Amino acid sequence: MDSQHLRPLEWTGTAIRVIDQTALPGALTFRELDTVDAVVDAIVRLAVRGAPALGAIGALGVVVAMRQGAREGWDDGRLVTEIERIRKARPTAVNLAWGVDRVRPLVPDGEAAVLAAAQEIVAEDERVNHRIGRHGADWILARTGRPKVRVLTHCNTGFLATTAWGTALGIVRELHGRGALEIVYADETRPLLQGSRLTAWELAQDGIPHLVQVDAAAASTILRGLVDVAIIGADRIASNGDTANKVGSVGVALACAHAGIPFVVAAPESTVDVATPSGSEIEIEMRPDGEVLAFGGVPVAPATSRAYNPAFDVTPASLIAALVTEEGVLEVARGETPGRRRSAR
Amino acid sequence: MDSQHLRPLEWTGTAIRVIDQTALPGALTFRELDTVDAVVDAIVRLAVRGAPALGAIGALGVVVAMRQGAREGWDDGRLVTEIERIRKARPTAVNLAWGVDRVRPLVPDGEAAVLAAAQEIVAEDERVNHRIGRHGADWILARTGRPKVRVLTHCNTGFLATTAWGTALGIVRELHGRGALEIVYADETRPLLQGSRLTAWELAQDGIPHLVQVDAAAASTILRGLVDVAIIGADRIASNGDTANKVGSVGVALACAHAGIPFVVAAPESTVDVATPSGSEIEIEMRPDGEVLAFGGVPVAPATSRAYNPAFDVTPASLIAALVTEEGVLEVARGETPGRRRSAR
Repeated sequence: MDSQHLRPLEWTGTAIRVIDQTALPGALTFRELDTVDAVVDAIVRLAVRGAPALGAIGALGVVVAMRQGAREGWDDGRLVTEIERIRKARPTAVNLAWGVDRVRPLVPDGEAAVLAAAQEIVAEDERVNHRIGRHGADWILARTGRPKVRVLTHCNTGFLATTAWGTALGIVRELHGRGALEIVYADETRPLLQGSRLTAWELAQDGIPHLVQVDAAAASTILRGLVDVAIIGADRIASNGDTANKVGSVGVALACAHAGIPFVVAAPESTVDVATPSGSEIEIEMRPDGEVLAFGGVPVAPATSRAYNPAFDVTPASLIAALVTEEGVLEVARGETPGRRRSAR
Repeated sequence: MDSQHLRPLEWTGTAIRVIDQTALPGALTFRELDTVDAVVDAIVRLAVRGAPALGAIGALGVVVAMRQGAREGWDDGRLVTEIERIRKARPTAVNLAWGVDRVRPLVPDGEAAVLAAAQEIVAEDERVNHRIGRHGADWILARTGRPKVRVLTHCNTGFLATTAWGTALGIVRELHGRGALEIVYADETRPLLQGSRLTAWELAQDGIPHLVQVDAAAASTILRGLVDVAIIGADRIASNGDTANKVGSVGVALACAHAGIPFVVAAPESTVDVATPSGSEIEIEMRPDGEVLAFGGVPVAPATSRAYNPAFDVTPASLIAALVTEEGVLEVARGETPGRRRSAR
C-alpha cells in the first residue's frame, strides 16, 4: 500500500476516523471518534500525534463536541467546557489550540460552517506540506551542494503526523522524488518509538532507503560524517526561533553544530507562536513514568525507580540553520527570526 | 540485599560463576562457565559486560581454557586458538585483551599460577575502583564548588561492570557516602538498557536517589541546568585522550560543553591504550540489527527495515574535562593526555 493514499484522520460524516498509531507497525487499525472523551483519549494516548495532525483533530474535534452536545442536550457553558478539554489535551504543540481557535468563532453559525472550516484546515495542510517539501529540498540541495543527500531525522513528521505528505518527512519525500536522496537515518525516538514504529513504516511503504538507529547513536552518526543534514519537525516555534520538538532534537542540533552540517526545522506557519518570545516560556509536557520504565507492559527498571520523562526539548535558535515553512526559508541562526519577519510585514 | 556484597563474577574452584546481567532487573540469576564456548557466549550476549569486568573474565577465561584443554586433551596449538577466541570475543574494550595478555605468559607455569594472577586482577580491580572513586569525588567537589552534586551517567559502570564498587558509579557511591550526592539521572542506554536495567537496579539496592530517563533526554536535562556533572566509564582510551564508550556518550559530552559543566571519564589504567594514537584508530563494534528492531522478541519496526547499531562512540579529548584513574586526574581538555604522562615517566 502506498502510504500517500492513506489518511491519518478523516471526517466520515458522523465521526473522525483515525489510524490508531499506537498499533503500528504491527497492525493498521482505524478508530472512529464521535465523543469528546474519545477525541481527548486519542490525543492523550498519542493514537493521533504530530503537530499538524493535532491542528486538524482540534478543529474536527469541535464538530464532534457540537454533535455530542446536540445529542445530549448540553447548554452553551457545557459546550465551551468540552471544547476547552480538547484544546488543552496536550500543552506543548501550539497547533492543537490553533486548530480549535480557528473554527470556534463559527460555532454560533452551526455545525456545517464549523465542519467546512475544519475541512479547509485539513486540505490546506496538505498543500502547505508540499510547499514545505519543495522549499526545504531546494535549500538543502543548494546549501550542501550534493547531488544526493544523506538525511538524519528524529521522531515522525510524515503523513501520520500531519494530514498528508509530511513536514520534515515531506522534504525527504520531495528529495526522494527528485532522485536526490541517498539514505535516511531514522532515530527510533524513545520512549514511544515513533521513529522505528512510524517513520520506518512510512519509509518502508514508499521504498525509501533507511536505517533505524537508537537515539543515542545520532551524535556519532553525525560526527562520523555519515549524514549531510538533519531535518526535524516542531511542536512550537517561539518568536525568536527557539523550537520545541520531540525530546532528543537539541542533542541532534548540538552534533550538527559540532560537525558543521545544517540542522533544519520544517513546520507549517501555524506552529509559529509569536506570542511566545523565546523557548524558556514554552511549557514542556511531562509524560508518565511508565513510558520509560516498562516496555509493552514488561518492567525494564526496578519497581522502586522513578523516571524523568519530558516529551519535548527546546533547540535554541542559534543552532537552527534553516526554518522551512510554506512561506519559504528563514536562516534562523543568522538572525532571520519568525518574530522579525512578522513584524516587518 | 546490599549490592556491595554481590560479585558479578567469581571463581568457584572449577568454573567462573557470573551474574547473568541479561536477566536483570527481573531476576538475579547466576551461571557457571566451565568451557570456552560458555565464556565466549557470556561475553557476546553481554551476560558479563563492562570494561573492567571483561578484563577479569578474560584472565579467568584462560584458566577455564586450560582446564577444558586438560579434560579434552587439547594440544598447545588448540589451547592458543581457544584462548584467542576469548581474547577477541568483543573488539572495542581493550581490557578483555589486556586481561588475557596479563596471565597468558604464565600458562607454561600451570593452572595454579594463572589462577593466582587472574585472582590478583580481580582483587586489584576492587582496590583500583575505590581509588578512582576518591580521586573523582575530590575533583568534582573542588571543581563544582557545590556541597551536593547532581550527576548524570550513561550505561552501567557499577559493580556489575567491574568486579566490585564500580568506576563512574564508584565515584557516585563515594559522593553518596560523603553525603555529597543529591541525585543521579541515569540514561536508560538503548538498545540493551544497561542504565534502566542495571544502573537503576544498583542505585535502588543502595538507596541512592535517582531518576531514569531516555537517552534522548540527556542533552536537555543538561542544558536545563538540572545536573552539575556527567560521569561515564570507558572501553578504550587512546593516547591523546579520545575515549570510546557506550554509544551516546559523545552526545552527553557535547551537551556538557554547551552548558559549561564538566564531562568526566572514569576508568582504570588498564583501559588506556597508548598504542592507539587517537580515537579514529579505535575499532567500533557493530551489534546485531535485532537489538534495535525488536524488543523482548516483539518487532518494533517493519520487517523490511534494517538497523545501524554501533555499540560505542568516540568522545574527542577536547570535550573531556577530567579522566579519572587510580593514579589520579588528568585534565584532558587542557592537554594532560595519557600518552604525554606515560612518556614523561
